[in-house]
Order: sequence, then C-alpha cells, then structure tokens
Amino acid sequence: MKFDIMRDRLLDGLNDVMKAVSSKTTIPILTGIKIDVTDEGMRLTGSDADITIQTFIPVEENGEQLINISEPGSIVLQARMFNEIVRKLPTNDVEIEVSNGFQTHIRSGKSDFHLIGLDPTEYPLLPEIAMDRQFSIPADLLKAIIRETVFAVATSESRPVLTGVNWNIHEEELICVATDSHRLARRKTKLEQLPSDVSSVVIPGKSLNELNKILGESTEPVQIVITNQQVLFKDENVLFFSRLLEGNYPDTSRLIPEDFKTNITINGKSLLQAIDRASLLAREDRNNVVKFETLEGNVVEISSNSPEIGKVEEQIQVQSLEGESLKISFSAKYMMEALKAIDGQDVVIQFTGAMRPFILRSVHDDAILQLILPVRTY
Amino acid sequence: MKFDIMRDRLLDGLNDVMKAVSSKTTIPILTGIKIDVTDEGMRLTGSDADITIQTFIPVEENGEQLINISEPGSIVLQARMFNEIVRKLPTNDVEIEVSNGFQTHIRSGKSDFHLIGLDPTEYPLLPEIAMDRQFSIPADLLKAIIRETVFAVATSESRPVLTGVNWNIHEEELICVATDSHRLARRKTKLEQLPSDVSSVVIPGKSLNELNKILGESTEPVQIVITNQQVLFKDENVLFFSRLLEGNYPDTSRLIPEDFKTNITINGKSLLQAIDRASLLAREDRNNVVKFETLEGNVVEISSNSPEIGKVEEQIQVQSLEGESLKISFSAKYMMEALKAIDGQDVVIQFTGAMRPFILRSVHDDAILQLILPVRTY
Repeated sequence: MKFDIMRDRLLDGLNDVMKAVSSKTTIPILTGIKIDVTDEGMRLTGSDADITIQTFIPVEENGEQLINISEPGSIVLQARMFNEIVRKLPTNDVEIEVSNGFQTHIRSGKSDFHLIGLDPTEYPLLPEIAMDRQFSIPADLLKAIIRETVFAVATSESRPVLTGVNWNIHEEELICVATDSHRLARRKTKLEQLPSDVSSVVIPGKSLNELNKILGESTEPVQIVITNQQVLFKDENVLFFSRLLEGNYPDTSRLIPEDFKTNITINGKSLLQAIDRASLLAREDRNNVVKFETLEGNVVEISSNSPEIGKVEEQIQVQSLEGESLKISFSAKYMMEALKAIDGQDVVIQFTGAMRPFILRSVHDDAILQLILPVRTY
Repeated sequence: MKFDIMRDRLLDGLNDVMKAVSSKTTIPILTGIKIDVTDEGMRLTGSDADITIQTFIPVEENGEQLINISEPGSIVLQARMFNEIVRKLPTNDVEIEVSNGFQTHIRSGKSDFHLIGLDPTEYPLLPEIAMDRQFSIPADLLKAIIRETVFAVATSESRPVLTGVNWNIHEEELICVATDSHRLARRKTKLEQLPSDVSSVVIPGKSLNELNKILGESTEPVQIVITNQQVLFKDENVLFFSRLLEGNYPDTSRLIPEDFKTNITINGKSLLQAIDRASLLAREDRNNVVKFETLEGNVVEISSNSPEIGKVEEQIQVQSLEGESLKISFSAKYMMEALKAIDGQDVVIQFTGAMRPFILRSVHDDAILQLILPVRTY
C-alpha cells in the first residue's frame, strides 16, 4: 500500500472515527484504526464493538485531488499514536507506505515516522445491513431529538434497558422516550416513509451522545436503517453503527398523568436561572432538592435551605396560575435539565398534587414532554 | 454593615482574591473571604497562609459610583459559595447586609440569599511591610521573567528550596534562577533603584504562577518590596503577598559551562516542533528521551525509538554548526520547555560533549540562559 493524502482531510476523518475508539477495549485490534485504500479513495474504520464509525475520503472532490494512490491496500495502525502523529506533521502532504508485512512509514516534509502496524484481516467485519428499508431525518432535527431525550437515560446499570432511548414507530410518528425512573423525557416527531415492520428499539444513550458530536447543524438528511440488533445512521461521508439494547422497554405511557389540579405558565429561562441559584445552597446538602410554592397574585417562590450554610428565596411572576395552591419539592438537577430541553421558551407546568409526578411542555406545541417525580419534604 | 455594589466589579475583585483561597486549608477561617467596608471602599482578602491576595474597590472611579455605603463594617463569607452566588445573581446591583452578629443577606433583583458568616476578628492579620525600600518592574516584563524561569523549579519536595525561584540582586541587575537539578533556567534583568540591603531570596514557584495569572499584559509598574520572610507585589488595585522559602539556595553559577566544543545556531520553532514530534514515540517508553545528532552539511537529526511501537527520524537544516561532531540524548520535555522560554527566536546551543550540560540562549541577547543535563544512552 502506498498513497499521498492531504493532511487536513485525513485529520477530519480521524476526528470522526476516533470517537468510536476506546482505550479501555479488551480486544487489542480495536485499539487501532483500520485504513482501506482502493482506487475510489480511503476508508477509515474505528470501533469499540458497541459503536463502529466509518468515514470515506474520495480520491477527488469538487475537482480537487485529495488522494494520490500508488498502490491500494489495507493496514491497522494504533489509533491514538497515528492520530497524534498526523496532527503534528510539518506539512499538509502526507505519504503513507506499507511494506515488508505491516511496517508502515508516514512521511511529511523531513519527518519520517515508522510504525509497526497490525494485520487488517484480524479487524472485525462490519454488520451487513440492507439499505432497502431506510427512512431519513434532517441532521439538525436528529440532533434536537437526541438533545431533548438522551440526558434522561439511567446512568446506573441496574436496569440496563433504561440506559438507552426507546425509539418507537407508531402511525407516521417517531416517539423517543428516555427515563431513569425518577424523570422522563419524551419527544414526538411526525415523519414520512417510516418503516412499518419495526416498531420499537432501544438505542444506547452513549451511542446517541457520540452520534450527536459527529452530526453537523445542517438540514442534510441522515439515512437511518434499523435491524434487529443494529441501527445505522448514514450521512454523506460517515457511517455510524450502534448495537441495540436487548430487553423490553417498559410501557411508560401509563405514567403520564392526564388530569391536573394546578396549571402554571411561566418563562422557562427565568425559572431555570432561579432554580440554578437555589441549587447553589441545595447542593451543599447533597440531595440538591429545591422547594416550589405558589403564592397570591400569580407569584411562585423558589427556595432552598442548608442549615449550616444559609438559605435562599426568590419570587417569580408567572404568566398564569390556575387551580389549587401547591407546595412541592423536586431535584434541581432534573428540573434544570428538563427546562434546558424545552430550550428557553415559555413553559406550561401541570401538577396533580405534591406527591404525584408533574409534567412540563412548551406553550407552543406538545412535541416535547418532560415528567419529573417530586421529592417528599413537606 | 450594609452597602450596594456593582456586581461586575465585585466579581472582578473576587476573581483575583479567589486565587489565594485553597479548599485544602487546615485553618477553617481561610476557607472564607474577608470583606472590609470603609468610607473609602471595599477591601477583599483571600489567603491560604502562604499567599495572601488583597484587592480594593473604591466607592467612586472615573466619576462613576461603584459602591453605595449605608454602614461600614467587616465580615468573612465562605469563599466558594459567595463567589458562585455573586456569579449567578440576576441583576448588576447587589446589596449586602450583615445583621444579628454574622447573619448576612445578599440581595439582587428578587433573589434573597441568607448566609451564615464568620467572625472577621478571627481572620489573620496581614504582615506589616514598610513600603520605603521598594523597586518596580513593568507588569509585562515581570510576567516574562516569571514565565522564563518558573517552569524549571523542582516539583518534588525532597529539597524544598528548589521548589522556588531564586531572586538575586547584584549590581543593578536582578538575576532569577530556577533549577530542579536536571535543568536550569536563568533570567538577568537590568533595573534601576534596586535595594542594596537585600541580596538573595527564594520565592515559591506556586506563588509566582498565581501572580502571573493576576497580572495584566500592561506596562504599568508593579511595586515590589522584599523583607526577610515576605515579598509583596503591588499594582494599582491588588496587593499580592507571598512567604519566602527558607534555606540557602545553591550557588548555580559554577554549573554553567564556559568553554564549548560544538556551537549550533538553529531556528527555535523548527527545533521545538521536531522535538515535539519525536517525543510522541519517546513518551511511550516513559523516559521521553530523544536523540540529537550532527550530520554533514549543516544538518542535525532528531530521532527517537520505541521498540514495540516504531521510530521517527527528522533532519533539520541549521544556520551554523561549528566545532566537533556530536551525538547526544536529552529529555524532550526539558528541551521543549527551554525552547518555549526563549520564545520562537533563533537560538544558539552550545555543547561540551555528550556527557556534559549544554546551554541554550537567544542569538539576540544573553538575558535568558537555559541549561539542560543530557541523558546517557549512547
């Protein structure tokens, strides 16, 4: 194998596939990045067995030659070292040559690196996924869907299926739900050409977080293919594979209350900042619980109290306050994350008493629903 | 005590004094920041017993009122909590009121924080330093002097005096020296009105690093007063006190060679980048040693070798190469830090054989001298 490539493009590609490489892997070959060079271009593959990312750099793009291939071939190079070497090379022209088995030279300017590569035939093959039942979501919408749900997955492995986001396809709608059993985030999205033969899968939260880092804020479509054990996200240059979580995701629809006793409309940003301030003192007690109380005259009070340090109180004018008066306590962290997912708009908060779960949504639409279980303190 | 202050100015002041506050202190009152309000303004003090930083915010500045004082007084507030509260207050107008002993209210907009303060009379007094024997250095020059020397102090406490930088006053010249016994950095600066009664003190490296963060890149003079146990740096608004290290600093002048066998003039930036690349492989072996060899035709070769990973070689054209040919090995880290201190200029490197210390200086002047002990590998 021997070829020349533009360093900047190689770095961009490495930047994507490095996100799948873990230093903690127990499979030695997966500490490496696989390079495949054909007459069409260069393919880079990185994997931690759960996530696999593949990116392709064509020989030519928009009339500009990116790669000059003398001899096609494949090699696996130690990922972290290869990435750092490419990052520090002195010129934008990189020559990579494999000879005598897996001996690899990386040359640029007057630098000559010699790395001992690994056998590319030992690298695991990608799952075969038929592309015939795909649907697509614009990249920016997909990023929003991830951002609005993935924070609510469980971090503990005690119920592994809760560490993922449940993607449910139901009558032209994609319904994404995440819960750690203390709070829940749900996002409904109307889409066209959804597959009818898949109804419910669970995608690991970690995979969605990595995917979110790779996707750009563009409206370009991301093709999605769901099989029994894998999901594939595909944009112009990157293939992102993730395994799915096994096990039945709980039916969460029954948890969401439908009758309410107190309805409040409030500016989400003001509430977020007040909770953030109150949590300064709440954090000291480690439980991070703040109190929320309705007062006369369309006012709510946020407060918290840490006996050894002090306390804080803050009143906020609300747009509307209907129904029973209320005193309730909840996790400042959960509330702030829910408000951030709704993203600074005016929000409606609907309560069914101090001991029952309450829900938040935007005043503008029902696409996003956030549910939080209160904490007993009164 | 009761006063109103502009939040931005309070934050600036806190930002400075927080650098002296350590969460690891064994003296409980030093987890706090002392606030003293007089008719002239507000003084903030933070300390970890080694370093003390004091900043002053005047009632009025350039015709703008910064503080409105209703009642002078003093209080100590838990530093981290107070700083975070002020950072998150909703408006730029902050009211601070102390009543009933040390009960402190911090109000802004509709937020009302209530903190339990500490007794200000328990806060340690500042050392008394007579300001009559001061000299001054422009802030940007002082920052350069710190940056060019402090990195070379010892990090191990086995010889505590080496964890500081030796400031020596000798015939209108300030000579600053740091060494960890494997390498040495020396900076000479001609100054006027140096005190004649102090000749040599050792300032802790940690103090100089913190001072460097506080000083701005301006040409404003920083007043310096050195006593037997303390040094004070003073600019317009900030007083920075540091204790001095006890013990005799070794006489390093005899370590610096004066006769050389090989003299090389080379572009500092090219050499730095080549060493950086070579250290990628050198690091894997944990010793981080690179090899440096003179070749024919005004060329030097930088190389390193890590048997399990690979090797790297790079040739650099030098401006001049005089004297004996040379093969030498040294720590990539020490070499890179020395070259960074000389700051990208052309450098002269002077060797006295592969086993003897070598020195680096700028081609332009002798103000900065860096010395490195080689490592035996050949």
